[in-house]
Amino acid sequence: MAVSAEILEQVKSELSELLGDRCSTSQAVRDQHGKDESWHEASAPDIVCFAQSTEEVSLIVKICAAHKVPIVPFGAGTSLEGHINAIEGGVSIDLNQMNQILKIHPEDLDCVVQPGVRRKQLNEFLRDTGLFFPIDPGADASIGGMASTRASGTNAVRYGTMKDNILNLTVVLPNGDVIKTGGRAKKSAAGYDLTRLYIGAEGTLGIITEITLRLYGIPEAIAAATVSFPDIESAVQSVILTIQSGIPIARIELLDEVQIDAINKYSNMDLPVQPSLFLEFHGSDMGVKEQSEMVGDICNEFGAKDFKWTTQAEDRTKLWAARHDAAYAARALRTDASMWATDVCVPISRLADCIMETKADLEDSPLIAPLVGHVGDGNFHLAFVLDKDNPDEIAEAERINGRLIERALSMGGTCTGEHGVGIGKKKYLPKELGDGAVAVMATLKQALDPDNIMNPGKII
Amino acid sequence: MAVSAEILEQVKSELSELLGDRCSTSQAVRDQHGKDESWHEASAPDIVCFAQSTEEVSLIVKICAAHKVPIVPFGAGTSLEGHINAIEGGVSIDLNQMNQILKIHPEDLDCVVQPGVRRKQLNEFLRDTGLFFPIDPGADASIGGMASTRASGTNAVRYGTMKDNILNLTVVLPNGDVIKTGGRAKKSAAGYDLTRLYIGAEGTLGIITEITLRLYGIPEAIAAATVSFPDIESAVQSVILTIQSGIPIARIELLDEVQIDAINKYSNMDLPVQPSLFLEFHGSDMGVKEQSEMVGDICNEFGAKDFKWTTQAEDRTKLWAARHDAAYAARALRTDASMWATDVCVPISRLADCIMETKADLEDSPLIAPLVGHVGDGNFHLAFVLDKDNPDEIAEAERINGRLIERALSMGGTCTGEHGVGIGKKKYLPKELGDGAVAVMATLKQALDPDNIMNPGKII
Repeated sequence: MAVSAEILEQVKSELSELLGDRCSTSQAVRDQHGKDESWHEASAPDIVCFAQSTEEVSLIVKICAAHKVPIVPFGAGTSLEGHINAIEGGVSIDLNQMNQILKIHPEDLDCVVQPGVRRKQLNEFLRDTGLFFPIDPGADASIGGMASTRASGTNAVRYGTMKDNILNLTVVLPNGDVIKTGGRAKKSAAGYDLTRLYIGAEGTLGIITEITLRLYGIPEAIAAATVSFPDIESAVQSVILTIQSGIPIARIELLDEVQIDAINKYSNMDLPVQPSLFLEFHGSDMGVKEQSEMVGDICNEFGAKDFKWTTQAEDRTKLWAARHDAAYAARALRTDASMWATDVCVPISRLADCIMETKADLEDSPLIAPLVGHVGDGNFHLAFVLDKDNPDEIAEAERINGRLIERALSMGGTCTGEHGVGIGKKKYLPKELGDGAVAVMATLKQALDPDNIMNPGKII
Repeated sequence: MAVSAEILEQVKSELSELLGDRCSTSQAVRDQHGKDESWHEASAPDIVCFAQSTEEVSLIVKICAAHKVPIVPFGAGTSLEGHINAIEGGVSIDLNQMNQILKIHPEDLDCVVQPGVRRKQLNEFLRDTGLFFPIDPGADASIGGMASTRASGTNAVRYGTMKDNILNLTVVLPNGDVIKTGGRAKKSAAGYDLTRLYIGAEGTLGIITEITLRLYGIPEAIAAATVSFPDIESAVQSVILTIQSGIPIARIELLDEVQIDAINKYSNMDLPVQPSLFLEFHGSDMGVKEQSEMVGDICNEFGAKDFKWTTQAEDRTKLWAARHDAAYAARALRTDASMWATDVCVPISRLADCIMETKADLEDSPLIAPLVGHVGDGNFHLAFVLDKDNPDEIAEAERINGRLIERALSMGGTCTGEHGVGIGKKKYLPKELGDGAVAVMATLKQALDPDNIMNPGKII
């Protein structure tokens, strides 16, 4: 359902009057806003607006609403299920110029930021305050995008996900009205949880233009560790026992031997090419030592021989840089390849089964797909490394992805632990939650965005 | 807007056919279901149904929906803002016979329960598993009610509130359809967060009939402590510094000298009649010692002289029993008195100001109102002890309550940290969030419950 040329001309004229040259229809700019980091086909918007304030976003939305033109919010473009692809055309609202850190309240452990702030930018800004923002999806995503996809990542096992770390949102509604959803109190029982409604709504119910985030004191001590295992089951069993023992681990990341090989090549490391865990411990000096030793003992029980922990900042930085580059390392396994990253999350007791069965599928497949995961949460990823113009490879990835999701659902899990639904996971949502729950979602969407202009075609 | 006698007769007949003598119109049963523990005027339902399964709740709702008769879910009746008062009459659905603990998954640290399960019952059941459910609002509330009011309580500073500890809900919708909102994965990014939408909806969007809860390992070591202060500001400043220092305290409760006096009398204790903190620490033996010593040092800095900690289970049990009876102790300060408990929550940096100004209001007032609070969250309560048939006393409580809420809102706080909106806080919601946000809530309510049969007159 493309927008008619006549309406586009009118909208373009109104937006240009408002924004001057911050309203663009150049092909290069449109193309740049037509796809994220996923394998999904690019769909360029017709117009791109660069907003600088909540008021401007509101005015842009009012213009689009008057003409029923689709709106797609755009942050860092690092989403993985086609979230920002403009599949029905319309206006992409680029929020990168709204990148101010508006307020830090160190005494309350919170801050207020605009949606275009990147997570690394925030943590660099915070460094001198002794505070940090823990949510770390790997990519240097925007805070607005992370809120909209309910992102999590490596630290979630200890600090929770975006849903647990947002106190308040400013949201521009589909009619251009502006609301706030909360305050700065650490908890509230005041009415429906609008904050959590917009977190993970992927821009389909409104546009987030300001975010109040919870912050944490940088721990007195941080230790990192690596450990490799004879097989992946031993690695996963170590994770399960660590979590079940209630050890307050900050990060516990699984990388299979394929991913370790990719990282060794890409990040110039020399890790044993075996299933491995990367770990991090936060606490007091004493607490970190205690945690490390407990986890070391657990890993040794399951046959690990090289558990090494360190409190050296350089070692830690190198380790997590390599982990964060895992996706790029995977893609580099093959020349001119694309990457299709998928994710599921299962109850921790089923994690070993889920991973083993998935690895068995891959052994029988011609595709390469390193496996990495935030396994403390029961969450893991496959990154299919493929030629996206080869229909056979796409079909094979689809087959394995479908089996992976069916498997996760049959174990009481979810079709996406952290990437979100976007375009790619839409068809799995009714399988996961049932038609009734999806109908409730559709009712909410219809009620809040009756003209379906907010990121249409995503989630539902 | 009472329901007509004719319709009631018809509904009564259909419900009796379904439920036999589990459908009652006796005055005593109706009265018992017409009010919670608040000061709000009682409003008895016309009919009370005792449901035994999700299917039965669904059938009851279908009968009520067909006749557009109001429905009020009823749990333990311990709510504090008139949540279960049937202000438009109709059918109260008592869920206390749905009190089965359906499944425990110790290896995944979760369980599935029916809504009538009480929190003490759950923890008694769990004792042999080494696990516990931390949310503790004081009253022996039902899990369904706690979910519906987004309850929290003494442990929330460490373990979060109900919103953080529910993985999945089964909900009977206003048309009788049944949905589930999630799975057993620890996190999910699969579509709108329906789980959080129904948590805190106070039964206005549907009836929760099954809940999947997160559980935690009982800590290796638990220590409790008491400490008294020369004045309330020193006590609050100690709390603020403890929280800002990132000490992972499990409970940190403030009781003013009025409340301590009440507790001494009611629970036969001999605490110094001064502003005091009750504290609890969870962790390893070493961790608990470390935490206790750090907090002890902080308290001493602010003039405390009697910080005492213990790992004796009996001492701890006695302490928390007294804390849990605080409301009843307050009421016992005056013969035949009623209690009006209110709560606000503010950013921790404003907690001292908020409490000091509130205490100043009380000094100038004839009313007695002990102050207690889950101050680690910035959350505290006043319990007005009054004669609810005396309009002057009600007016005075309303005046002080109004000033308290305005004060909390002006500090970036909320009109209710954990009690919920019910009837009593409705008028404050637009002041807190703005008309726009409340309009969004009304849109959600209208979309999901177009005939307004689900607990009408609450929240909005």
